[in-house]
Amino acid sequence: MAGDMNGRQLRRASGALAGFSLLLAGGAGADALIDNVTGMTLNRDGQVVRFKAMVIDAQGKVVRLIAPDEQPPKPTKKNPGPRYDWRADMKGRVLVPGMIDAHGHVIELGLAAMTLDLSDTRSLAEAKAKIAEYARANPERQWIIGRGWNQEAWGLGRFPTAADLDAVVSDRPVWLARADGHAGWGNSLAFKAAGVTAATTAPSGGRVEKPLGVLVDRATELVERVVPKVSPKDRTAAFLKAQQILLGYGVTAVSDMGTSIDDWMTYRRMGDIGALRVRIMSYGMGIDTTVTIGGTGPTPWLYDDRLRLEGVKLYADGALGSRGAWLKADYADAPGQRGLGFLSDDQLQNIMSRAAMDGYQVAVHAIGDRADKQVLDAISELSQTYKGDRRWRIEHAQIVDPADMASFGKLGIIASMQPTHQTSDRVMAEARLGPARLGGAYAWRTLLDDGAKLAFGSDFPVEKPDPWAGWAAAFTRMDAGGQPVGGWHPEQAVTREQAWWGFTGGASYASFAEQKFGILAPGQRADFLLLDRDPLAATPADLRQTKVLETWIGGTRAWARK
Amino acid sequence: MAGDMNGRQLRRASGALAGFSLLLAGGAGADALIDNVTGMTLNRDGQVVRFKAMVIDAQGKVVRLIAPDEQPPKPTKKNPGPRYDWRADMKGRVLVPGMIDAHGHVIELGLAAMTLDLSDTRSLAEAKAKIAEYARANPERQWIIGRGWNQEAWGLGRFPTAADLDAVVSDRPVWLARADGHAGWGNSLAFKAAGVTAATTAPSGGRVEKPLGVLVDRATELVERVVPKVSPKDRTAAFLKAQQILLGYGVTAVSDMGTSIDDWMTYRRMGDIGALRVRIMSYGMGIDTTVTIGGTGPTPWLYDDRLRLEGVKLYADGALGSRGAWLKADYADAPGQRGLGFLSDDQLQNIMSRAAMDGYQVAVHAIGDRADKQVLDAISELSQTYKGDRRWRIEHAQIVDPADMASFGKLGIIASMQPTHQTSDRVMAEARLGPARLGGAYAWRTLLDDGAKLAFGSDFPVEKPDPWAGWAAAFTRMDAGGQPVGGWHPEQAVTREQAWWGFTGGASYASFAEQKFGILAPGQRADFLLLDRDPLAATPADLRQTKVLETWIGGTRAWARK
Repeated sequence: MAGDMNGRQLRRASGALAGFSLLLAGGAGADALIDNVTGMTLNRDGQVVRFKAMVIDAQGKVVRLIAPDEQPPKPTKKNPGPRYDWRADMKGRVLVPGMIDAHGHVIELGLAAMTLDLSDTRSLAEAKAKIAEYARANPERQWIIGRGWNQEAWGLGRFPTAADLDAVVSDRPVWLARADGHAGWGNSLAFKAAGVTAATTAPSGGRVEKPLGVLVDRATELVERVVPKVSPKDRTAAFLKAQQILLGYGVTAVSDMGTSIDDWMTYRRMGDIGALRVRIMSYGMGIDTTVTIGGTGPTPWLYDDRLRLEGVKLYADGALGSRGAWLKADYADAPGQRGLGFLSDDQLQNIMSRAAMDGYQVAVHAIGDRADKQVLDAISELSQTYKGDRRWRIEHAQIVDPADMASFGKLGIIASMQPTHQTSDRVMAEARLGPARLGGAYAWRTLLDDGAKLAFGSDFPVEKPDPWAGWAAAFTRMDAGGQPVGGWHPEQAVTREQAWWGFTGGASYASFAEQKFGILAPGQRADFLLLDRDPLAATPADLRQTKVLETWIGGTRAWARK
Repeated sequence: MAGDMNGRQLRRASGALAGFSLLLAGGAGADALIDNVTGMTLNRDGQVVRFKAMVIDAQGKVVRLIAPDEQPPKPTKKNPGPRYDWRADMKGRVLVPGMIDAHGHVIELGLAAMTLDLSDTRSLAEAKAKIAEYARANPERQWIIGRGWNQEAWGLGRFPTAADLDAVVSDRPVWLARADGHAGWGNSLAFKAAGVTAATTAPSGGRVEKPLGVLVDRATELVERVVPKVSPKDRTAAFLKAQQILLGYGVTAVSDMGTSIDDWMTYRRMGDIGALRVRIMSYGMGIDTTVTIGGTGPTPWLYDDRLRLEGVKLYADGALGSRGAWLKADYADAPGQRGLGFLSDDQLQNIMSRAAMDGYQVAVHAIGDRADKQVLDAISELSQTYKGDRRWRIEHAQIVDPADMASFGKLGIIASMQPTHQTSDRVMAEARLGPARLGGAYAWRTLLDDGAKLAFGSDFPVEKPDPWAGWAAAFTRMDAGGQPVGGWHPEQAVTREQAWWGFTGGASYASFAEQKFGILAPGQRADFLLLDRDPLAATPADLRQTKVLETWIGGTRAWARK
């Protein structure tokens, strides 16, 4: 269990009388000194600022940074110099702002950690062995639930089938989500429970693969509605698990993309008992959920800036891997298929309008270039009516027609992108799109140059919530193995500092939180990390190996490596 | 708008320097003196305690009461006596604890205040005139929504029909809830929108009256599902309206009996922005809603003890007026009919068990003697498994078979009753039950004598949330007109003090809040009222006329008469 002594406790430990005398000395006693650090942060202009110490106040906010060359004035009787209520000697360790994930799924991360994980399997045979082992080890589970399979990573050349699964689990239903969450793979008992056969007609926006085994996008609902519901106890456990994972990676704030009512209630329960540490900027799953939570508009910041309903998460299309992404032209590896648009232009605009009317921020998932165009057109139209600082967000923006790039900047749109998707997806993306259409793929550099605001995340649990991997991928376009050498379409790399901004100030701006946290500067919440290395000096490969030693949120240590 | 200067503001108004010097004088400065009152409260034993002043602390809790004959010790240099941060001179006015309504519907009260109210109509003709007038005055409303009609009060001798309504509104749907909320009356356009005809089969637990016009209990859902939803904006307005009404009557805390997800979200939004003043002890509407809100159990007390999810509200039957109450024998005025049980014994026990397992308090609506028996049997059974301080509640307990009375005491059950229901219903109850079965009707005295814990409320908006009327009815069994002289079944009257307890300490005990508020005593929240008369000395008729002058909650003035 991570330690979590806060300023008040440290103060108490240091003796009540001493604290009292300091308090009488002039009221500066409420401040604390985080001393002897190799500190670095970006400033509002995205430039690196270095410091050797940081003063924080009793509210857990930064009072000021002390520059490496700053000399304290010689204390005199009249001016005895600053006095601190407590001081922490960080012994020269590297200190950086907390990392922010601009797009993740908090409860899903915890649930995924509690269920069967196939994301590291490299073949169908390996996956089957792992599923069989999990079923043996968990005889009490009525359903085997899991996720993370990817027939592309397996080199299978087809979707897996129910028969593949029946061969290893035939005594109870099995339901396994694809790595991208846009498809599900079931065994025969799962389909039986759902009343699905190979002859079942998929609902609009979905597909039933043949032979029976995989359901794509909306069709997954046919099975998901019969999967036993996650209990509140499971959800609480999932939250706590996810929070520990995030804090361990140094992630201090998250934009939660698609908060359900049950998720929201879990966050509130955690906040109510003081167990909410990571900051959650929440986007309700669809407009009805959002309005149910927020009522007449976004909530205030709650629990000392740890929770806020910001806006709504919508979907314009599916994912590339399952060919659910909506493209302008046919899939290169599936002629005649262009993927699925989830909503008509009118439907999308009506929902966005309803949200914008009440001041909710709008974040729309759009992966294919056709979907991105649909959302850009909708924002262009709605911007006529809904003026001011709206910060429309497009989530993923994976495949954007180069002709449409400039619209991001023109409309002040936030491109919320996931660098590790690029490194995970590149082979698949080449197959889906063909070489001629890759100019607008994962094109964060062009978007930035064209005026978009970049925010970076991981889309956890689709990818690991590892910001160091994301940071390295963003300025190298190389994966953990250093492949491809020199980077994939390296002209789309941003600088190391731009990438850092995407995971800090850019991500907080993307959720209207830049006055609260994102960088270390006076007035900002003291969310910071102690690291085992200097991320600005490390090679990309070394940066990926960064170990977080301590994670502090609001001036309180929320996690420490054991 | 009511004034609401709190301790902090009063302190500021009295000058920062003065406050500072008091603080230095010994730390007692955080206390305040509510001085010069004619104070009265019950103590934990239900005995009257009188006082002339009350000390409260900065957290809004009672520090101590100062007895009428108490003389302060002569101040000396060493013992200068207590110093207060602020002092309010109440000029001798009567001060009592805030009143608690053990059974109400907060949002419904506000919505009712915003919609057509037929509760004061004395004939069908009068109602029709009022409906026509409302429709003319509100041309923008797509549906005419209202409540409060009672064919008994009209002396109609039958239910009203759709044709009655069509005669006054034929351009849009009309849907009007009966006074008890257990039936709805629609016009032809409402039934057309719902697809309901005289030939429609009622769902189980409901009834379609003929000729078409009124739907009873579960059948009301047929129309209610097509009535436009209440928007979050409406719900916020309804909450604020309800809160003003409650504070004006001197009601400082309420057990909200059937909180929906939307209601809960409204309470939280109000709490989050500091607009929640009245204390809400919430019972989720059914088990699913309760579990969605509370997850693994009741929430903590939130917002300085202003909101807590306590448990679940369930229904065993309907209401007496609409003959939905479930009786052991036939209705005297409808041979062959015994009303409706909503759940089988197994269903009821399973739901109660699911709730009790997670520590939710269970409150079951049971009006007819058969329904009360069903709930008593369920509690008897479940008490074998769920031990400890459970405080099972039966809501209304209007008609209880005398043979079943003792079970309340034996099982430690709370009888949550509404004295004004007795005065409103007595003629109807005589008709429904006949004279021979009235011995167990509204029998709060026998229940109390048999060991039940009494909690009193109004069931607002079914009745006005007027605790002074409720208090007077409880010890006189007479209505506002003094009828019947000598009281209806006066042997069932409790004492004036017992009735007061039902609206204060008894009501807080009934929701596990007796450590928080309910009486004025050290450690209790300083929830109190200033009144224009002495409720212990007033005649019953005068007591009903009590005017609340100021309502204070947690040491802060939340409402003042203009």
